This record gives sequence, C-alpha cells and structure tokens, in this order.
Amino acid sequence: MTEHHTTPSVVIDHPEEIPGYTYGSADAPASPLTLQDLERLRAAVDLTEEDTEALEAAARILADQADDMVSAWRAKLREQPWLAGYSGHPDGSPNPEYSAASKPRFDRWIIDACTRPLDQAWLDYQNEIGLRHTRAKKNRTDHADSLDHIPMRYLLAFTAVVIATSRQYLAKGGATAKELDRMHAAFTKSVMLHVTVWTRPYVDPVNW
Amino acid sequence: MTEHHTTPSVVIDHPEEIPGYTYGSADAPASPLTLQDLERLRAAVDLTEEDTEALEAAARILADQADDMVSAWRAKLREQPWLAGYSGHPDGSPNPEYSAASKPRFDRWIIDACTRPLDQAWLDYQNEIGLRHTRAKKNRTDHADSLDHIPMRYLLAFTAVVIATSRQYLAKGGATAKELDRMHAAFTKSVMLHVTVWTRPYVDPVNW
Repeated sequence: MTEHHTTPSVVIDHPEEIPGYTYGSADAPASPLTLQDLERLRAAVDLTEEDTEALEAAARILADQADDMVSAWRAKLREQPWLAGYSGHPDGSPNPEYSAASKPRFDRWIIDACTRPLDQAWLDYQNEIGLRHTRAKKNRTDHADSLDHIPMRYLLAFTAVVIATSRQYLAKGGATAKELDRMHAAFTKSVMLHVTVWTRPYVDPVNW
Repeated sequence: MTEHHTTPSVVIDHPEEIPGYTYGSADAPASPLTLQDLERLRAAVDLTEEDTEALEAAARILADQADDMVSAWRAKLREQPWLAGYSGHPDGSPNPEYSAASKPRFDRWIIDACTRPLDQAWLDYQNEIGLRHTRAKKNRTDHADSLDHIPMRYLLAFTAVVIATSRQYLAKGGATAKELDRMHAAFTKSVMLHVTVWTRPYVDPVNW
C-alpha cells in the first residue's frame, strides 16, 4: 500500500510564508520568561543533548506526516462534541475556514518541536502560541468566529493523545526499537516543554 | 543479576495504613468537579476500556518497582538545586523526614494510576493531591518544614520524566513490543489525566 502524505511543502520548506506564523519575527512579542526560566524547564523535562539529536532524527520522519498527524488528532477532537465550539463556530458548527487557516501552523509546530533551538525566538513564539489559546489572543490571527478561550484542562489532557500517538508515526521511519524509544522519549519531553510554557497565560504568575 | 525491589508491602497490600493517604475516606473533601467533568477529561486523554485493561497489566509489573521509580525520579529532581526547597527545608537543605513521610503515597500513586476506577473517590482524592501541591495544603499532611507551593510549571514539566522513564520499568515485565506499547500509551493517558486534574487549584475556574 502506498502512503500518500500531504504536509504542504510551504510548511516544510517555507514556514515564513505561513499566514500568522510569526516565529522569529518582530510580530511575536517578547515572552515574559527569561532564558534562565527556559533552562530550568529544559532541565525539569530532562531534555538532553542526546534528546536534541534524537529529535533531529524524529523531524526527518515526522515532517512528511505532520499534516496527517494533525488530521488524526482533529478527528479525535471531533468525537467530543463539547469541544466543537473551540475549533468550530461558537455554536459548535464546523468552521472549515478557521480549521484550514490554522492547520499549517499546527503542522509546522510538530517540525518546530523537533528542530528549533531553545532560545529567545523559541520563548517568544511559544508565548504567542499560549496566548492564542486564551481570551488574550484566540481567533485574532485568523479573524475567526469561534469560542474565545480553550480551557486549560483540555489543552493538557489532549497532550496525552499527542504523545501516545506520535509513536506510531515515528515507527514508520524504520528505526530500531532502541532508536524509536529514544525518539519517542525526546518527543515526549519536547511536547511537555512546549505545553508547559503555553500554560503561562492561564495562570497567575505567583502560582505558575 | 538479581533485582531487589523495595516497595513496602503496606503500599501494595494495605494502602489504607499509609499515613495521610485518604483515598476513599471522608477525610478527602469533595472535589469541585463533577463526574461529567471527569468523563470529558477521560475522553480528552482518550483513555479507553482497552487502556484500562492494559493498565491492569501495567500495575502487575510496576507495583514492585514503584518505590524504585520514585527514588529515581527524586534523584533526577535533586539534580535541580532550584527545586530543592519544595521537597527539602525552605532553604533547600535536605528534609529526610518529609521525604520519607511522603514517599509511600507517591509510590502508591503509581499503583492507583493503573488500578483505580474513575469515580467520585478518584475525583476527591485527586483534588486532594492537587491541593497538597499548592499553598492551600502543601506540608500540612506531614507537618513538614518546606516551601509551601510547588510552581505549576515544574509539576507539568516533570510529567515528561514520569512518562518517558515509565517505559523502561514496564519493559521489565517481559511483555511483547505490542503489549508494551499498549501499556505505555495507557499509562501516558492516565498520568496526563491525573496531572490535569491536579492543576485545577492553580487556575481560576474561568480559565481552567
């Protein structure tokens, strides 16, 4: 069976052309976090240099599959009608324009999570992604008609699906079991690092 | 090489005798969440009946290793001096009494995460665990001299270590690769379900 992957080439080769993707640009406001904050979170997820190498290998396997991964995750989300208003219109009816507009950025996040260095540009764009899940900035990028805040609990809970299902996509690269374990552990750490930083705008800094 | 596991028998066979472990007792106040909230979070992490079966198998493998797992996780935390005050005294110096007092409950959590049904007792005790990480209740159970609040970002970030390292312990059960994948995915979902609920006291309900 031939597998046909559909990650748009712009996502892989020219992310700077993705509408609303402001990674590394002046349109991503400065994160309130410092590089020391980031270093401590990197240590807390235990993301090592070995993990960084494993993530580079993971990126080579996942890039072509990124769009399929996002499609599968969204299919899982669509099974939960109480979530429909966050990606659809506020009444839960489908909003294909919004879904199409946000998908290349979601796809690209998978690649970025494997390849981007943990620097100021990383901090700034992750801050922006976090804000775009909350009342602060949701819907603005795509001028979308949708509920204006994704509850933090669903953001966190759905991370389990992202982590658990990523293994099957990594496995398609034909790596040894040991290499697959390394890539999957590294991807798990990277995902949790990202999601942790995305929660910052949800929480009073004194508690976060 | 003979492996010697050290999970105390009370943790495995008589958890109700663990000091401060109030699972299912009237000493665990009612969670503010409803069973419908829990059902939606179960769906969000995609914890299925097949996962529940895989978790039962995982419990049989992890129970004897639970104390070793917690020891290894705590060793990893000790590498991060800026976290020392949360488990040690407020100045970061070791607090062996507090560590010893809280360890059986941490051990038991691994077993509970694989075996407990998702019911009102689950909700109530997870709410209690969340509160015990925050200013609301940290240190009270063990009358401990320690910082009174674990920042949410470290709780979330460290989840990556729990999920990633659990695989090597599950692998010691001699399961097939496919069974190991099932158990690890199920454990990942269960851990994220727990940690998600633990974040509730950190966040304004309108955002959570």
